[in-house]
Amino acid sequence: MFTITHNDKKSLARTGILKTPHGSIETPVFIPVATQATVKALDSKDLELLGASVLLANTYHLHLRPGEKLVKSMGGLHGFMHWNKPIFTDSGGFQAFSLGYGMEHNIGKIASMFPVPHSIGMPGRKKLAVVTEQGVEFKSHLTGEKIVLTPKISMQIQRDLGADIILAFDECTSPLSDYAYTKKALVRTHRWAKESLAARRNAKQQLFGIIQGGEYKDLRVKSASFIASLPFDGFAVGGSLGKSKKDMHKILEWVIPVLNQKNTEKPRHLLGIGGVDDLFECVERGIDSFDCVAPARIARRGNLYVHPPAGTMKNKFVINIENAKYKADKNPIDDQCACPTCRSYSRAYLRHLYIAQELSYYRLATLHNLHFILRLMEEIRASIRNSTFARLKKTWISNHT
Amino acid sequence: MFTITHNDKKSLARTGILKTPHGSIETPVFIPVATQATVKALDSKDLELLGASVLLANTYHLHLRPGEKLVKSMGGLHGFMHWNKPIFTDSGGFQAFSLGYGMEHNIGKIASMFPVPHSIGMPGRKKLAVVTEQGVEFKSHLTGEKIVLTPKISMQIQRDLGADIILAFDECTSPLSDYAYTKKALVRTHRWAKESLAARRNAKQQLFGIIQGGEYKDLRVKSASFIASLPFDGFAVGGSLGKSKKDMHKILEWVIPVLNQKNTEKPRHLLGIGGVDDLFECVERGIDSFDCVAPARIARRGNLYVHPPAGTMKNKFVINIENAKYKADKNPIDDQCACPTCRSYSRAYLRHLYIAQELSYYRLATLHNLHFILRLMEEIRASIRNSTFARLKKTWISNHT
Repeated sequence: MFTITHNDKKSLARTGILKTPHGSIETPVFIPVATQATVKALDSKDLELLGASVLLANTYHLHLRPGEKLVKSMGGLHGFMHWNKPIFTDSGGFQAFSLGYGMEHNIGKIASMFPVPHSIGMPGRKKLAVVTEQGVEFKSHLTGEKIVLTPKISMQIQRDLGADIILAFDECTSPLSDYAYTKKALVRTHRWAKESLAARRNAKQQLFGIIQGGEYKDLRVKSASFIASLPFDGFAVGGSLGKSKKDMHKILEWVIPVLNQKNTEKPRHLLGIGGVDDLFECVERGIDSFDCVAPARIARRGNLYVHPPAGTMKNKFVINIENAKYKADKNPIDDQCACPTCRSYSRAYLRHLYIAQELSYYRLATLHNLHFILRLMEEIRASIRNSTFARLKKTWISNHT
Repeated sequence: MFTITHNDKKSLARTGILKTPHGSIETPVFIPVATQATVKALDSKDLELLGASVLLANTYHLHLRPGEKLVKSMGGLHGFMHWNKPIFTDSGGFQAFSLGYGMEHNIGKIASMFPVPHSIGMPGRKKLAVVTEQGVEFKSHLTGEKIVLTPKISMQIQRDLGADIILAFDECTSPLSDYAYTKKALVRTHRWAKESLAARRNAKQQLFGIIQGGEYKDLRVKSASFIASLPFDGFAVGGSLGKSKKDMHKILEWVIPVLNQKNTEKPRHLLGIGGVDDLFECVERGIDSFDCVAPARIARRGNLYVHPPAGTMKNKFVINIENAKYKADKNPIDDQCACPTCRSYSRAYLRHLYIAQELSYYRLATLHNLHFILRLMEEIRASIRNSTFARLKKTWISNHT
């Protein structure tokens, strides 16, 4: 169901077409996150107009509210959201662990993002989730109700939600989990991978296995090798991606060659990553798809993407619209952008809406950031086809060679 | 600049065309409120798609933030908001009084809406506004900074904002102001009306005079007669509209015949009113335009308009989307509606978004309610032209004859 259409000669970057019952996805692709069956501040029509080709919804959130049975009765996620293109769902594992432990919703996947160390069962934090050999038990962050997720239950929920591509149930270890714990968790995750495959009922849903192993080379290699040996339709790289972006790149450099030996022709997803530089670095290392809340979340906080030369690695390719220097700025957010927001509104107007906390700001800002990332991925795909990927990367990330 | 195109034979209802530098407005018309230069949760493009022909922005809010000088430098409200159709601004008087006294933003115009009596300088409430013979001094609800509004200042602010139709500066008395106070305030308001006219500088801006006088017949008649004698381009009925909707109807029955004697051919706006039944009752009594935040505000609180027979006077023509009975309801909000929300989404999905407090809910709900009211006004205009206004009113408000 996945066809590679072009391989970059100088890197592991590649273009492909992933076929699903709701249409084809051109890869590499950025997948906007529709956590609760809506991309925050946008509706399905907006996403169509932005040219999004696929969304990812969250099993954990939808299981809690409105519940997968309701979604199923409404025609699955496609009918419920009125979105007729492909949908991914995650397994619920990540949220079960992060929310179950009462941590921030915006838990990062790289340890350096955390100013305060945390780990499973850390002192002073009420432990809301318990990992057993069967799965994870946790309390709903909405109602306090006890919830159990196991590979079988996760598969059942994802079957009811009806996504085109679903993920195996895994344990997402913390960036600060030690080797011993990560190794132990990996054994469980591998057993759960097989249980997830065994619990699959709907052959139309493609099931991706998840590679774990934290930041430990032998565990990542072992996991890639094991997961690639199972009859998954694709793979996802999940869990802790180390203490820096360099660690994340190393992890991909351990994992992808293993997949290339075993299963070149299956798609590879990177869970929860989506910075501008990440897209280049990880596509170069063989990633086909990304999902990430960041472009939408930073938009809501005033950070709006701009192209180089205004956008640089140093400013993370964003301007902060709250800055007083934009007070009377008649220019669009980004002079190279053709999104609905940039076509109609000035920085001054958006700054006013942001400061006044107007609801319209959140949509206009999200439209811009998602348009920006979706167009960037389109450019990346074209550059791979035209053998100009390295050059494109250089024009964006001049201080990374 | 206002041409009456049809007079209803059985009532004071009429259709007309109000010409402005930014295009013509067909009346009777409903004017969505863009308080801070945005209709909450929508952008200008949304309003264009809904077929809104005119907006009303708030002088008080825009004076405080971002300031009229900034708006002027951005090409006035039209340039700032990227809205090329007509715009009204109010005079700032209403907000100065209501917010100045630290009252709720959603202060009503009819006393029965207030469970707790309040009046100017009521005990226990910190008095933030002081009325002088020159104008009103109050503290910004944002910064605490002292602000002064006078007829001259209001005209200057409205000139800088650049609306097509501006309003005279008036004192908006409370629904609970007594006769003596209302009479005294009216003398001031009438002097301010003349001062507003004298302070007008831009002949392209049409200036409407405001008729006050609370719920007192002699004061309303006197005010209508006085304001109609001045060279205003149109009139607005403002201030306290009594203790019930019947009082409001009576006030219009006192005021409009006076205007009809003096100035049939000038448009008449009713400030801050816009319930479904109000549109019928007030059009019937000779009102040409309405502005009201209610359709958008009630949408944000889950109340969504439905046509008769589901919509009735008793349920105020709304369903509350939070109701459990809509949990798995595949129908659109209103089966007679062709708005973007009803064309794509079910009640079940909207209920989910509402309960999950998703940002997308607020826009989808606002789109529906404004579409509903704008289409209703379109129907009302057509019914006046076809001499079927009374019949149309009856199909909507069967228990009011």
